[in-house]
Amino acid sequence: MTSNTRATSSTDATGRALPHPSREEIRLEAVLHALSDPLRLRIVRDLATDGGELSCSHFDLPVTKSTTTHHFRVLRESGVIRQVYRGTAKMNGLRGEDLEHLFPGLLDTLLAAADRQAVRLGDDG
Amino acid sequence: MTSNTRATSSTDATGRALPHPSREEIRLEAVLHALSDPLRLRIVRDLATDGGELSCSHFDLPVTKSTTTHHFRVLRESGVIRQVYRGTAKMNGLRGEDLEHLFPGLLDTLLAAADRQAVRLGDDG
Repeated sequence: MTSNTRATSSTDATGRALPHPSREEIRLEAVLHALSDPLRLRIVRDLATDGGELSCSHFDLPVTKSTTTHHFRVLRESGVIRQVYRGTAKMNGLRGEDLEHLFPGLLDTLLAAADRQAVRLGDDG
Repeated sequence: MTSNTRATSSTDATGRALPHPSREEIRLEAVLHALSDPLRLRIVRDLATDGGELSCSHFDLPVTKSTTTHHFRVLRESGVIRQVYRGTAKMNGLRGEDLEHLFPGLLDTLLAAADRQAVRLGDDG
């Protein structure tokens, strides 16, 4: 009943909320689809590197704002990230625990594969 | 110069060949896209279980023949499988060595994740 019990709430003070799949609703195919786009993969790599939450505006992607919003939505609806309002900012964080529970080792292996490819192709950073 | 040196040829006696990406051309994003479809994931799981080559007709998928052909083409063009003509049959095999070289552990982790999900959802086998 205290605010502590709502630490993962995705609503803000005015009750805005974004729909997320429950852990049980997350599907491997949707996760792989979400990560099959270069920009979405880059977002996930940045979130993994940071380890915490990043605002959408942190990401300077070479696409329009509406396309950026679309990419975050695909990541959220697939269960890869959680998006929560904190004041006026929409914050994004990886659902690492959920993914690890469902697919042990998968996220780490995917991130390692992405790192390896970035080094190989010389487009890291 | 002997037939042994052409063991991985994708041409048949009449010279038919199917285009494949070289190992260096394989991209993680394309591999993940290829595996983001339930039927393509099923094909890959069957190929992994078999460990060798299977003909397209081995797979009794609940879609039209042209859709089946499409799915195999996506898997081939992403570098997940190699398709070779053997006489009149088009045979399919996982490019396990190429994928392991590029993305160590990825294919095994993905297959384990797919197995785990199939058990969890009760749709294995």
